[in-house]
Amino acid sequence: MLSERVSTGNPEVDKLLEGGFPRGSVILVAGSPGAGKTLFAATFVYRGALDYGETGVYACFAESRERFLQYMRKFGMDFEPLIRKGRIAVLDLSLATEVDVQSALNQILEAVTTLNAKRLVIDSITGIFAGLKSELEKRHVLRLIYRLVQRTGCTTIVISDVPWGSSRIGDGVEEFIADGIILMESQYNSGILERRIRVLKMRGTEHTLKTHKYRIDREKGLTDITAE
Amino acid sequence: MLSERVSTGNPEVDKLLEGGFPRGSVILVAGSPGAGKTLFAATFVYRGALDYGETGVYACFAESRERFLQYMRKFGMDFEPLIRKGRIAVLDLSLATEVDVQSALNQILEAVTTLNAKRLVIDSITGIFAGLKSELEKRHVLRLIYRLVQRTGCTTIVISDVPWGSSRIGDGVEEFIADGIILMESQYNSGILERRIRVLKMRGTEHTLKTHKYRIDREKGLTDITAE
Amino acid sequence: MLSERVSTGNPEVDKLLEGGFPRGSVILVAGSPGAGKTLFAATFVYRGALDYGETGVYACFAESRERFLQYMRKFGMDFEPLIRKGRIAVLDLSLATEVDVQSALNQILEAVTTLNAKRLVIDSITGIFAGLKSELEKRHVLRLIYRLVQRTGCTTIVISDVPWGSSRIGDGVEEFIADGIILMESQYNSGILERRIRVLKMRGTEHTLKTHKYRIDREKGLTDITAE
Amino acid sequence: MLSERVSTGNPEVDKLLEGGFPRGSVILVAGSPGAGKTLFAATFVYRGALDYGETGVYACFAESRERFLQYMRKFGMDFEPLIRKGRIAVLDLSLATEVDVQSALNQILEAVTTLNAKRLVIDSITGIFAGLKSELEKRHVLRLIYRLVQRTGCTTIVISDVPWGSSRIGDGVEEFIADGIILMESQYNSGILERRIRVLKMRGTEHTLKTHKYRIDREKGLTDITAE
Amino acid sequence: MLSERVSTGNPEVDKLLEGGFPRGSVILVAGSPGAGKTLFAATFVYRGALDYGETGVYACFAESRERFLQYMRKFGMDFEPLIRKGRIAVLDLSLATEVDVQSALNQILEAVTTLNAKRLVIDSITGIFAGLKSELEKRHVLRLIYRLVQRTGCTTIVISDVPWGSSRIGDGVEEFIADGIILMESQYNSGILERRIRVLKMRGTEHTLKTHKYRIDREKGLTDITAE
Amino acid sequence: MLSERVSTGNPEVDKLLEGGFPRGSVILVAGSPGAGKTLFAATFVYRGALDYGETGVYACFAESRERFLQYMRKFGMDFEPLIRKGRIAVLDLSLATEVDVQSALNQILEAVTTLNAKRLVIDSITGIFAGLKSELEKRHVLRLIYRLVQRTGCTTIVISDVPWGSSRIGDGVEEFIADGIILMESQYNSGILERRIRVLKMRGTEHTLKTHKYRIDREKGLTDITAE
Repeated sequence: MLSERVSTGNPEVDKLLEGGFPRGSVILVAGSPGAGKTLFAATFVYRGALDYGETGVYACFAESRERFLQYMRKFGMDFEPLIRKGRIAVLDLSLATEVDVQSALNQILEAVTTLNAKRLVIDSITGIFAGLKSELEKRHVLRLIYRLVQRTGCTTIVISDVPWGSSRIGDGVEEFIADGIILMESQYNSGILERRIRVLKMRGTEHTLKTHKYRIDREKGLTDITAE
Repeated sequence: MLSERVSTGNPEVDKLLEGGFPRGSVILVAGSPGAGKTLFAATFVYRGALDYGETGVYACFAESRERFLQYMRKFGMDFEPLIRKGRIAVLDLSLATEVDVQSALNQILEAVTTLNAKRLVIDSITGIFAGLKSELEKRHVLRLIYRLVQRTGCTTIVISDVPWGSSRIGDGVEEFIADGIILMESQYNSGILERRIRVLKMRGTEHTLKTHKYRIDREKGLTDITAE
Repeated sequence: MLSERVSTGNPEVDKLLEGGFPRGSVILVAGSPGAGKTLFAATFVYRGALDYGETGVYACFAESRERFLQYMRKFGMDFEPLIRKGRIAVLDLSLATEVDVQSALNQILEAVTTLNAKRLVIDSITGIFAGLKSELEKRHVLRLIYRLVQRTGCTTIVISDVPWGSSRIGDGVEEFIADGIILMESQYNSGILERRIRVLKMRGTEHTLKTHKYRIDREKGLTDITAE
Repeated sequence: MLSERVSTGNPEVDKLLEGGFPRGSVILVAGSPGAGKTLFAATFVYRGALDYGETGVYACFAESRERFLQYMRKFGMDFEPLIRKGRIAVLDLSLATEVDVQSALNQILEAVTTLNAKRLVIDSITGIFAGLKSELEKRHVLRLIYRLVQRTGCTTIVISDVPWGSSRIGDGVEEFIADGIILMESQYNSGILERRIRVLKMRGTEHTLKTHKYRIDREKGLTDITAE
Repeated sequence: MLSERVSTGNPEVDKLLEGGFPRGSVILVAGSPGAGKTLFAATFVYRGALDYGETGVYACFAESRERFLQYMRKFGMDFEPLIRKGRIAVLDLSLATEVDVQSALNQILEAVTTLNAKRLVIDSITGIFAGLKSELEKRHVLRLIYRLVQRTGCTTIVISDVPWGSSRIGDGVEEFIADGIILMESQYNSGILERRIRVLKMRGTEHTLKTHKYRIDREKGLTDITAE
Repeated sequence: MLSERVSTGNPEVDKLLEGGFPRGSVILVAGSPGAGKTLFAATFVYRGALDYGETGVYACFAESRERFLQYMRKFGMDFEPLIRKGRIAVLDLSLATEVDVQSALNQILEAVTTLNAKRLVIDSITGIFAGLKSELEKRHVLRLIYRLVQRTGCTTIVISDVPWGSSRIGDGVEEFIADGIILMESQYNSGILERRIRVLKMRGTEHTLKTHKYRIDREKGLTDITAE
């Protein structure tokens, strides 16, 4: 039995996933710098509000809210009207602010509740972990996020930054709480930077088993997704 | 002399193991995200109750009880009638709860005793370890689990999550208390996600020495198990 | 929509980046010893002041101011007239001085404010980190730099020294706060030292996806940049 | 001059070693899970008592005594009559008991003295180390074992568990106190699980320099040992 | 503009460097045991005093002064007359002495000042680091050396010992304070020990980009330097 | 100028070294278990006393004195008459004894002084390090050994145990105090255990640059040394 699908906002990616993410699931989107993780996650929230009538919250831990909004305008996504209409909230929890992790999660919970949000992006778990001292604190935060997602029922993307040259996902812990894992790789191959998307796991979904290449286009975002 | 066999609930896997696990043994099922470990272990408990009249306990540390039950319904396994009849217990010991490890193990012991369970799944040892501080605590927990299994005589699956990109099993300690080790791998090969099952060890069993490929099917679970 | 471009000062590199860096962005320039990172970053500030009328600040953490100026004269860049005219400031924050990190960042902020600088180079984040004790202190410094850049709006190059034989970028944290990452490699290939430049990431830019070789010339600096 | 030989209990292995282990030596048997280390060591003690009239002590640290005895019956070795006759002692020092290491070693010494044992197996050093906190404690225990062996003159097998995917032997310390080292590997090769035995070192013995494959047979134990 | 050159004392190496090191620069000479680093650095000081009239200081941290002098006599370099004439000082700061790092650096500074030395060798930074406890202390010492070199203006060789089997240079920090890096490798290739010299970096110098092989000759020292 | 040679006691090895070790040098003999390091070092002391009239001290840290003597008898070397005549001392400093490192080094110094020894073996530095807690203590001990050798003028072999599967020498520190390094490898190649000897470094010696294979023979020790 196929569970209810939530479109990723990108029709080409939807095709890899039997139509989208399973509703209410936590999807880990892991990848190297420049792979387009933020672009993909922003599209999920933006098109959710615009095309599917689902409110959404985008929590920026890695960069400032302003920079995020400005960056998205480059891709033709103007978040501000949607923010004004209360369809989307973009939270500034960036490194530049002194917000501690607990209060950051409270802000997310509050925004999700206020907007009755159906979609949530945490960008990124790596950014959150950067403010923590020990392994134990990291695990505690994962537990808090997990609980938040369960309570609110949001379909949630958690972004994980994979350092250049690493083949591991984050601290090796994030992946175990996820219902789905999407790997977005940006790697040099015979001197050319190639981008690839792989679905490692997607619960309740007969997802693609193939590696797909893609391109980042200023107008279409992730596009030209083709099986290798 | 062949020891008494306990069916894994999956006839294709049983064939790799001279009919199943040795009764009363501890089987480590290790694998990468998306390999189907939870699906395999759930089938073990579900078919045990339904086809072999053996009561069972499924202890969820990595995800919530509700999410587990919902995920299994996708594969056509409805645990709830069996739970109501006292044939199966599914324990919610997930990250979202505040349960500490000692009391979690006590809950398992109690459930096993109450149901006079013959089958037990701990999903996962990685989830349990996530709440612990030191190597020593981890080893202490392993000792407690081992003692629990010995006292109750349950045939037990312990799931171990192998992080993406790693070729080691957990902390390298879990494997030494196991009577059997099954490796479920999910890896990209020439751009295609392939799943493979390997029996590294199965005490008292002339198990297959071959690597087998398999597929995950929404109806049949692990299927099309064929030697490479 | 293409964001406003800031020339790198090197027309050959500009071509790889649709004309230059996005204004106000933070660019991580990472590379092995001898790859020409300092030369590239110095050109960015020097040509900015000379050709584009943009004031700039060059913060030397890895070597002394004097040594930097002397080294640049070898490449035909005489910073001193520009310094005298208040177009450029070169700060001596090198290991040979007793300056602590906080006051070093204050000096940078002051210089940027005084000159109303549009361009900033921090050479290098590795040099700054050398004076710090813990991971947490490093992350705190990254946060301070990030804030400084945001407040001043400078287009900023942060240099990261990659040790010989390593394929990782710094501590794996620097890369996540950057809007762009340029990798400058200096490696032996069949016995010949070859230099290569790669753009791993450049937000809002359809940058080259190809690896380019280059040469360091005493007159032209980085030159003969050609796709492999 | 060839030193006195002590049969390993397995005639095929004896052939690789000029007839067996040197009397009084400490042999490290290292290998991956499922390679048959326990089976090989148990045969050493069992056949020693039955065929060579040598009393022996088997110290179980990794699993319980009961489980060991039951497992050996599967291979046609019934230890219990020999235990009753005082020819063999099997000590339960498993993780399930709270015995501390010092008292465990005392129990071994006492059993060896009582039986006037000529053969000793410690299964495994990895199991002992699991209860220790620091490197220093591990080294102290190695020293105690070494002293115990010297005082009693037992020909001794010390089992070392090599985690799956590792090519190192234990903590890299055990190997230096051994007079002999035998490596038992269980590895997948072109999809098939293959078992190999190698003699890395055997003091005073012109041991085989070849790698040998072997099979585990329910009746014959390690068998079909053939050079590659 | 080519900066003033300081001959390395070895005409074959000078050819790789447009005539020698840039005056006043710090050159890191890194390499494996047996590559001839000490021989190369000693020649730099010896020929400096004899052929170029430049006084020099050789600071021995890794071995005793006596052993160094004796070893150099084997290569036909008799330092003692030059020492008596006050042209060269060889400082005994070896492990066999109780000198602490700070006072060692003071001795170097004093010797450089007394002789008005133009050339300095620190053999080796690895030897200095061996007496230090923390990363922070190491960095502090690097800062002190850097300051010493700046104050005295000596052209300086700092030797870094690369352990056998490692492809990293020291602690990965030394390389960032150097104006030049020369790698001297001693490695087995098809069973033959081959020595290779590579110039990774030499500020203000269009140094060779090729790997060169060399031989160590009892009379000529490093010789037969030929491009691969 | 060739320095005075000290025969290694093995004429085949002497040929690789222009006749032997340089008098008074410290030679690190590093290798894997079973490579014959102890055999080679024992021959150095034994033949020194018998054929060259040089007294010697053999310090056993890794095994007991008795075991060493017994093992050597297997190779036809009877140390006891030489010990009785005061030509050789074999010190029992093994793990089985309670001797601390400082007093062990004192015993060595005393024995060397009493016998007026010209040859010394420390077997092994790994055994000594096993009793130490920190890196700093290890370095302190290296300094003490170095000083001891300098004061006594002994030609000294220091054995370093390389763990199976490692390509590094000890802690990467031992190698920097050595005048010579000999690597004795024991490795499987196409299923056959092969032994190889390599001279990585030998100060003042135009040593072989080739890898040589060898065999261990019960009568001749290391023999059949032939270039690959």
